[in-house]
Amino acid sequence: MPHDVPWFLGTLVIIFAAAKLLGALAQRLGQPAVLGELLAGVFLGTSVLGVVDSQEHVLHLLSEVGVILLLFEIGLETDLQALLKLGGPAAAVACAGVVLPFALGYGVCELLGLGQRAAIVAGAALTATSVGITARVLSDLGRLQDPESQVILGAAVLDDILGLIILALVEAMEAGEPVTVLGILKVAALAFGFIIAALVVGRFAIPPIFRRLGKKPGTITMAAVMLAFGLAWLANAAGSALIIGAFAGGLLLAFTDVVHEAKRGVAHLGYFFVPLFFVVVGAAVDVRVLNPFNPANHSTLVVGGLLIVAAVVGKFLAGYAPFWFKGKKSVIGVGMIPRGEVGLIFAQKGLSTKVLDTGQYCALTLMVMVTTFLAPPLLRWLLPPHPQSRQQREGIDELVSEA
Amino acid sequence: MPHDVPWFLGTLVIIFAAAKLLGALAQRLGQPAVLGELLAGVFLGTSVLGVVDSQEHVLHLLSEVGVILLLFEIGLETDLQALLKLGGPAAAVACAGVVLPFALGYGVCELLGLGQRAAIVAGAALTATSVGITARVLSDLGRLQDPESQVILGAAVLDDILGLIILALVEAMEAGEPVTVLGILKVAALAFGFIIAALVVGRFAIPPIFRRLGKKPGTITMAAVMLAFGLAWLANAAGSALIIGAFAGGLLLAFTDVVHEAKRGVAHLGYFFVPLFFVVVGAAVDVRVLNPFNPANHSTLVVGGLLIVAAVVGKFLAGYAPFWFKGKKSVIGVGMIPRGEVGLIFAQKGLSTKVLDTGQYCALTLMVMVTTFLAPPLLRWLLPPHPQSRQQREGIDELVSEA
Repeated sequence: MPHDVPWFLGTLVIIFAAAKLLGALAQRLGQPAVLGELLAGVFLGTSVLGVVDSQEHVLHLLSEVGVILLLFEIGLETDLQALLKLGGPAAAVACAGVVLPFALGYGVCELLGLGQRAAIVAGAALTATSVGITARVLSDLGRLQDPESQVILGAAVLDDILGLIILALVEAMEAGEPVTVLGILKVAALAFGFIIAALVVGRFAIPPIFRRLGKKPGTITMAAVMLAFGLAWLANAAGSALIIGAFAGGLLLAFTDVVHEAKRGVAHLGYFFVPLFFVVVGAAVDVRVLNPFNPANHSTLVVGGLLIVAAVVGKFLAGYAPFWFKGKKSVIGVGMIPRGEVGLIFAQKGLSTKVLDTGQYCALTLMVMVTTFLAPPLLRWLLPPHPQSRQQREGIDELVSEA
Repeated sequence: MPHDVPWFLGTLVIIFAAAKLLGALAQRLGQPAVLGELLAGVFLGTSVLGVVDSQEHVLHLLSEVGVILLLFEIGLETDLQALLKLGGPAAAVACAGVVLPFALGYGVCELLGLGQRAAIVAGAALTATSVGITARVLSDLGRLQDPESQVILGAAVLDDILGLIILALVEAMEAGEPVTVLGILKVAALAFGFIIAALVVGRFAIPPIFRRLGKKPGTITMAAVMLAFGLAWLANAAGSALIIGAFAGGLLLAFTDVVHEAKRGVAHLGYFFVPLFFVVVGAAVDVRVLNPFNPANHSTLVVGGLLIVAAVVGKFLAGYAPFWFKGKKSVIGVGMIPRGEVGLIFAQKGLSTKVLDTGQYCALTLMVMVTTFLAPPLLRWLLPPHPQSRQQREGIDELVSEA
């Protein structure tokens, strides 16, 4: 019985300890804590120490709770009005950030002679930004309120919806089904419709509900959790993404008069669940693919290397798409670089339908891995921590301390 | 795929909503909230609505985290000195509370002609108090600091250790191994040795460690969680019980100067995890066994009914064992009545080794169920909520609110 209660408790203690230690070490070196947590995952993962199996069911579920709570927290910190005001630049970044990486990735694969279907899957895997990593870095640096950060958040949310539409297209293509304009429009309408409906209905329904709940911390915290999980569930059921529902929930709760109590309660749950997400993401990395002395890895490293260039250049250039936006466009581009779960989903689908071989699958994993690890130090370099706040991740930590 | 992330989120929302609603309803009716949470579990369980399967792996693990955090919170609220001062009465209650129910249960089974081995298993299942239920009721009533509550807590902890020793004996008997005095002494020495060693070593080691951690809420909360989980793991590895390690961790953390921050952080995690425990306990109840119109249930109801009398009378009388203790002895006896996990473990072992038939197994489940549901209203009746505190569960809630 490797999966009994003592195993579970022991594994959690090791994960928390490693995440906290390497997170603190990263901060000492002037890097965001999340970089240390990702590295903790790599060390604990199956390819090094073998303590954390990123495929393990319970850890996977809890890590998803972590990213849902994180996006909910980010939503709580976000001003919907400001986000909508920056909707134009965000939409430009999102669209360019899908078209450019797809075109570059497709081109690289065609150039290397991988075949059209593999090129489409690889191009698609380059499109979706992992908003979790960037949002956490911006939060670590106390920069969530900057206009650049708002553009990144907005673009990443749109980008996730576009990624889902592309996923539906690729799945239809793989299944040999005809891809119709009507089908695309239906998927898009559902995904965008959900977030608009949730925000419009919730803007009026949520504040009175929370006003009636009183101020007991247990009630507020659990009502906030139910809102986050419930909207995540609903978003998924409507064909949108879980984290988009959670983000919408945070945006809505920001309109209530218990936002302060809710932030404190969710932050405490976040201390538990959020590091689990980053450790599990790190644990999915197979460092053996990186060994250049193994000839079997050579073609993976070449394909992976070119895909990384396509991924970085594509998203970086997308940051300059809103040419009228007066902000640091380089920050936006870099903030869009990390790929995460969605990229891996494309890779796994490609592998399971045999469109990709194992080497190509590893090349895509390599791309996800490198872009994820590249963004935190690059963002930190372009964007010094907020001057008023020397401690890190204080958007949330300070709110909890001052209470 | 019934066990994916949306399923998980949806199930959690339903559990939290039902627990909160029925908990609030129980409070309106002057009952402890935990009674409503248990009932929520019964309704959601496999025998009624079928939303929560108490055997489901993830929910089981998270519910165990709930009871571990609960015992850790109770430990944080407990004064070790006061507990030790009441060690005599607690030991008397614990010993009488093992001997009397065992003798009565064994007698009932022999009387009904169930055979000696079944009588031993049934008697053993009557011995172990479920400290989680009683501790939560006392906390709900704001009565954790009363001397009677301290005797109950001390006795329940000792009782859990005695239960583990009896479990080892019964297992050896079932396996046909010889039961030696040396073997018993070894199990007892390990179980008692762990808690003594943990308290003696921890009393000196824990406060300086926590002093060095600073005051950031995220750090304190997660250090407290690691202490709770780590000691629970260690206790289990040493042959003691998980919840005893967690309780010891709480006792130790009470000596540090961050006890206030730790209480607040752990309370927020408790809002999430603790109701899961009570809902899963409730969900294990199969209400179909209670149907008196089904003739197949008659012998189960007779055996179960007599075992319930033995269970209630045995523990109630044990409350009077410390004849020199000047407190409400009836409260102590009633506080020891609920049986939980350990009783079910005996029943399951008996069923899997075919010492018990299905009807006898259901009779023991019935006993666990009724004693669990009987204790909260009885305690509430004997022990009105603390006069200074009209709101419920405030030992913890107030600490969080006042912060």
